[in-house]
Amino acid sequence: MTFRTLALAAALASSAMVSAQVSPQQAAREKTFDAGISSAEQMAWLKQMASAPNHVGSPHNKANAEFLLSQFKAWGWDAKIEEFEVLYPTPITTTLELLGATPVTLGGQEPGIPEDSTSNNLAGALPPYVAFQGAGDVTADVVYVNYGLPADYAALARRGISVKGKIVLARYGGGWRGLKPKLAQEQGAAGCLIYSDPANDGYATAATYPEGGARPPAGVQRGSVADMTTYPGDPTTPGYGSVKGVKRLDRKDAVTILKIPTLPISYADASKIFAQMGGPIVPDNFRGALPITYRTGGDGKVRLHLAVTSDWSLKPLYNVIATMKGKDRPDEWVVRGNHHDGWVFGAADPLSGDVAMLSEAKAIGELAKTGWRPSRTIVYASWDGEEPMLLGSTEWAETHMAELQKKAVVYINTDGNGRGFLGAEGSHQYQHFVNQVAADVTDPQTGASVLERGRAKVRADAFDGGRTDEAALKAAEAGGDLPLGPLGSGSDYSSFLQHLGVPSLNLGFGGEGESNGSYHSIYDSYDHFVRFDDPGLVYGAALSKVVGRVVLRIADADTPPVRFGDLAATVRGYLGEVRTLVDTRRKQDDKRAGLLGGNAFMLASDPKAPVAAPVPEAATPVVELAALDNAVSRLEASAKAYDAAYAAKGAGLDAGKRSRLNAALMGIDQALLIPEGLPGRDWYKHSLYAPGRFTGYGAKTLPGVREAVEERRFADANLYASRTAAAIERLAARLDAATKIIG
Amino acid sequence: MTFRTLALAAALASSAMVSAQVSPQQAAREKTFDAGISSAEQMAWLKQMASAPNHVGSPHNKANAEFLLSQFKAWGWDAKIEEFEVLYPTPITTTLELLGATPVTLGGQEPGIPEDSTSNNLAGALPPYVAFQGAGDVTADVVYVNYGLPADYAALARRGISVKGKIVLARYGGGWRGLKPKLAQEQGAAGCLIYSDPANDGYATAATYPEGGARPPAGVQRGSVADMTTYPGDPTTPGYGSVKGVKRLDRKDAVTILKIPTLPISYADASKIFAQMGGPIVPDNFRGALPITYRTGGDGKVRLHLAVTSDWSLKPLYNVIATMKGKDRPDEWVVRGNHHDGWVFGAADPLSGDVAMLSEAKAIGELAKTGWRPSRTIVYASWDGEEPMLLGSTEWAETHMAELQKKAVVYINTDGNGRGFLGAEGSHQYQHFVNQVAADVTDPQTGASVLERGRAKVRADAFDGGRTDEAALKAAEAGGDLPLGPLGSGSDYSSFLQHLGVPSLNLGFGGEGESNGSYHSIYDSYDHFVRFDDPGLVYGAALSKVVGRVVLRIADADTPPVRFGDLAATVRGYLGEVRTLVDTRRKQDDKRAGLLGGNAFMLASDPKAPVAAPVPEAATPVVELAALDNAVSRLEASAKAYDAAYAAKGAGLDAGKRSRLNAALMGIDQALLIPEGLPGRDWYKHSLYAPGRFTGYGAKTLPGVREAVEERRFADANLYASRTAAAIERLAARLDAATKIIG
Repeated sequence: MTFRTLALAAALASSAMVSAQVSPQQAAREKTFDAGISSAEQMAWLKQMASAPNHVGSPHNKANAEFLLSQFKAWGWDAKIEEFEVLYPTPITTTLELLGATPVTLGGQEPGIPEDSTSNNLAGALPPYVAFQGAGDVTADVVYVNYGLPADYAALARRGISVKGKIVLARYGGGWRGLKPKLAQEQGAAGCLIYSDPANDGYATAATYPEGGARPPAGVQRGSVADMTTYPGDPTTPGYGSVKGVKRLDRKDAVTILKIPTLPISYADASKIFAQMGGPIVPDNFRGALPITYRTGGDGKVRLHLAVTSDWSLKPLYNVIATMKGKDRPDEWVVRGNHHDGWVFGAADPLSGDVAMLSEAKAIGELAKTGWRPSRTIVYASWDGEEPMLLGSTEWAETHMAELQKKAVVYINTDGNGRGFLGAEGSHQYQHFVNQVAADVTDPQTGASVLERGRAKVRADAFDGGRTDEAALKAAEAGGDLPLGPLGSGSDYSSFLQHLGVPSLNLGFGGEGESNGSYHSIYDSYDHFVRFDDPGLVYGAALSKVVGRVVLRIADADTPPVRFGDLAATVRGYLGEVRTLVDTRRKQDDKRAGLLGGNAFMLASDPKAPVAAPVPEAATPVVELAALDNAVSRLEASAKAYDAAYAAKGAGLDAGKRSRLNAALMGIDQALLIPEGLPGRDWYKHSLYAPGRFTGYGAKTLPGVREAVEERRFADANLYASRTAAAIERLAARLDAATKIIG
Repeated sequence: MTFRTLALAAALASSAMVSAQVSPQQAAREKTFDAGISSAEQMAWLKQMASAPNHVGSPHNKANAEFLLSQFKAWGWDAKIEEFEVLYPTPITTTLELLGATPVTLGGQEPGIPEDSTSNNLAGALPPYVAFQGAGDVTADVVYVNYGLPADYAALARRGISVKGKIVLARYGGGWRGLKPKLAQEQGAAGCLIYSDPANDGYATAATYPEGGARPPAGVQRGSVADMTTYPGDPTTPGYGSVKGVKRLDRKDAVTILKIPTLPISYADASKIFAQMGGPIVPDNFRGALPITYRTGGDGKVRLHLAVTSDWSLKPLYNVIATMKGKDRPDEWVVRGNHHDGWVFGAADPLSGDVAMLSEAKAIGELAKTGWRPSRTIVYASWDGEEPMLLGSTEWAETHMAELQKKAVVYINTDGNGRGFLGAEGSHQYQHFVNQVAADVTDPQTGASVLERGRAKVRADAFDGGRTDEAALKAAEAGGDLPLGPLGSGSDYSSFLQHLGVPSLNLGFGGEGESNGSYHSIYDSYDHFVRFDDPGLVYGAALSKVVGRVVLRIADADTPPVRFGDLAATVRGYLGEVRTLVDTRRKQDDKRAGLLGGNAFMLASDPKAPVAAPVPEAATPVVELAALDNAVSRLEASAKAYDAAYAAKGAGLDAGKRSRLNAALMGIDQALLIPEGLPGRDWYKHSLYAPGRFTGYGAKTLPGVREAVEERRFADANLYASRTAAAIERLAARLDAATKIIG
């Protein structure tokens, strides 16, 4: 799952506890639905599903899929397991040695602790590793590269430090895991280690497990390092489903598999390496919370031996797909998913979300037994293989692409859950709708609505001097809709949104629990979860109530509850950001040139700890944004017209108009796809949202243009300003057609 | 001395290496002067003067005074030792015990290390302590209060933590040392410990001594905690000189002596206390760099025994005063000082500055032997007793107040020195002049002018994302004058500027050495200094060249080289800041009220780590700033007229006009004194500059108004807006009179 420190960019407009737009019948239905949600059941399911290692290919993962299947069936769903066969490398050996007079063996499995029952029952668990690293065997010196992102390499270069032929030691955080070995190999490194600094999720954040929930000294974060920013899913089946027997790329031609051996390690191990490192003292922003003077290394003092061998055999995937056919509009699908595979026991990630989803499915099943049937078809999916690289959802979406693009109204994702505030990201035409739902669900700790609590959080944090999203603060102060965050990647919505153009939402509570410290380790256990993450799973029930309402209201709506004005306003904001980016870059380029000309960097540098001037850069040119600006203006006008027309006449449409309107809206988001895809990664086709090439999970909006400016690909910037403008014009044209139907 | 992490607020306008306005004779004289400056001599003097403990009352401190006296005399100065008798408490016993099953003794003298010769020769050295704490004997639990400043107590109160009856554990930094026990006693604490967190000057900043210069685990920062913000100098002789036999306040009536026992400790000791502390996890900004989860304590888990007894006898002070009579204007004095007492060996603080001053005195003495005599009288002063509370300079200034207010043209201070960039603070009519001097001295590491290097630093830091003083950056980019910082307190200029109204400057290099880590500890030694602070004392020579030019150019100028437009512009900037402060406060008060009304703080708070709402505050009213605004406008006009008149006709004044002009300018800064003094601290009389009541060393400008707004004393704010306006009007009137003389 995405590691969310809490997308409060999102906790979520009407402050009444039952929002005005819900009919009495719908309200009664939701009351029945709520009565079917049980925290106690969720706890029992969680305990069972997290009782043994459940990574892809493990016996307990298959057992969990079969358990899920049996439950869906028992609750009246038309359910099946849909299998795929995927490339998923598992470790055979993982070797890490600190060489010297007395070599020290590092790495290996994390130690069990008495207070955590499953941690002492590790049969079948995989040791710490990262999937899709490049196997290999190297011995070299080490360089500490902070988060291992481009700015870090630039800072090192100015200090005369190269990683060529070295093993880089990067800390987790700052950007997506997989970027660290990817950029390291681009920089010529021979290997990569990634450790969890206590500043990021250890003792600096909370007491360490088991006293508190923070990462203990020997805790390690596993994860995937396949090059997600190019495409997710099975590296050998890009763009099509990994069904059994399908033709695959040769492994060596699969560009998303990395080339250098990489291992994740604990800070206990990293400390031993740091203790031997020399070289210059690091720049301030490289410092973590270890009690040392952090140095860059690279001075030849350390010899590390790093070797990984992997089993590259194909493994089976078990997606559980459960369907409840719509009585009025069977070919309009509301798809809702959460994955069930974990790295080890996966209690928080993903099972806390999966059991909330299971509660929804049970309560909807019970509703159906009362004679109710959804107007649209509801599809519940428990994905397999999310952790290695969104395998289950990607292969399914690629396999069923044509049908999904024809039928899927929306995809609603969760991926684990915690205590605190509702985080919500997604397609902005659903922003007002999500806020309405958040106004109708009660926060279990305070008794206020989830929305009110979210607004209070934004306002109190801003008052207390925390980082503030200005749009969120303005909305919170005005009692308006809290903004949805944009979707990047890191969970199963990616294919739906960014490859297929299906509008998507991602929802989850968090911000108060301490699951960061167990993330992707053996300590992500039932014991940890019920002590530190969501005791009593009260937020598990709250999540079921939020997502259940989202599913039911969309499924039963005459027409999907969208408001395109919110989308248009959001895009207007993004365009403003891109303009500011261009201006800022131009000014910065001017300043750099001036400073280089005046030798200022040399004069400012401490001769005893020299920092060279940055490399010269060509000035950022003016980027042609007029067409894009005009397109956004047209979208604003078209959205305003649609929203006004629907508000005035939407409730009274006759059946023929309704049907034509719904058909006109079906697939409308596909207008936003750029057929050629984004520069250098054509799998990603959405013109508004993409995972950042250098952020990973973090979204880049208007990515074709924004990233081109950031990366100084100015021809791309102009080309994608034009392509993005065309996409937005297409959406506006389709909206105009829909508005015309309303009449 | 003031601990300057580097007032680059100040590194210092004309880029030629000899500025245009220096006459050929003056340039030749400065060349001779420079030839008399020797780094090697400074090293020898430093080694000798730092060879034994030299705190007030120690034999070696007296020996140093006598050595200085003999040198000044040998170089032809009219020199004497001027003695005072001051209250200066020294420790008899300092006790700190961590009680429990096996009590642990903490505190005591710092350990010697082989690489530092004087650290093994501690006979006569005082153990770690803070002067003017309140002796006492207490046993209590501990609360960690971060920097121990008002915002920290507010944060603790919101978490339900009180320090009543407890011992507070504060870390150094964030504000002046003495505020920590003062605020602790106001909060009802029974005792106070102050430790050096490795985040602030330990391993997080550089390798620890002796590998690097940062503070080692057992290093302790001594210092004074007398309530400097009320008045400096001997607590029992406020406002008058502590000459032998003078009538003194009873100690119990001396308000600047604190009431609770206080000790400084190392982080090695603090770690042992933290290890036993419970209570809530601290707010993020309380975290230092120890490898722990910082907690507030206050839960009764720790029992600490803290006791201090002091010898409260009077001690002798030896100020060394050396005079060279002016040949033309003997009753116009240029006063230049640096202190010679240290906490232990005092190599960096203060002796590195004192030896630079000695070099100047020698070189000026040699100039005098060539037949040259200064036009004005030059007074060199090596102060005693600066460390306990600016005793030597304050008692001297108070004793000679009438004469100094009549004769002193300027006071020029240094207080230690280091490697790097010129820091300069002071009276803003000298801003352009200081920049001219900085343009004429070569930086020893780069060969650029000191000014060019300062400008490069400001620009490069801003480009690289460091904190930026916008005015400095604008000036640096334009090749203009870098701004002087305002003077607060922490060194010997305070009485001159803030009590007497003598314009003052404070100068020193720094920002690249590692003397922070030895500050006020036994490791502030010759060995440390020549390895990590200013190897070869090349910056010692640079400081002599800068300050020597300042002294000689002012002494020989026809009329002091001031430009009042710079002062007026600076005050205009300060007034803008105060307006912004009022507006910001009003908005913040509104927001707080809105949040309190909506219960937002409670809704935003994590019930498992509750943070209560802040206390309600009455709204900040509109403050009457019109009179002040008008006064600043008048000053701008008067300053512009004076500067223009002097620029046009200043060089050609006849002797009569020159003499009347100089008389009109003499004491002109006293117009800026407010006769009633600042609210609650009438010793401080300057309307523009004061040490902040809650910053200490850090300056508050327009302090009567600004601090009243900050502290919600709104009647004071209006009263002092009016008094400050009157002071500024007086200065403008005197400037108009001076302008009239020029004709």
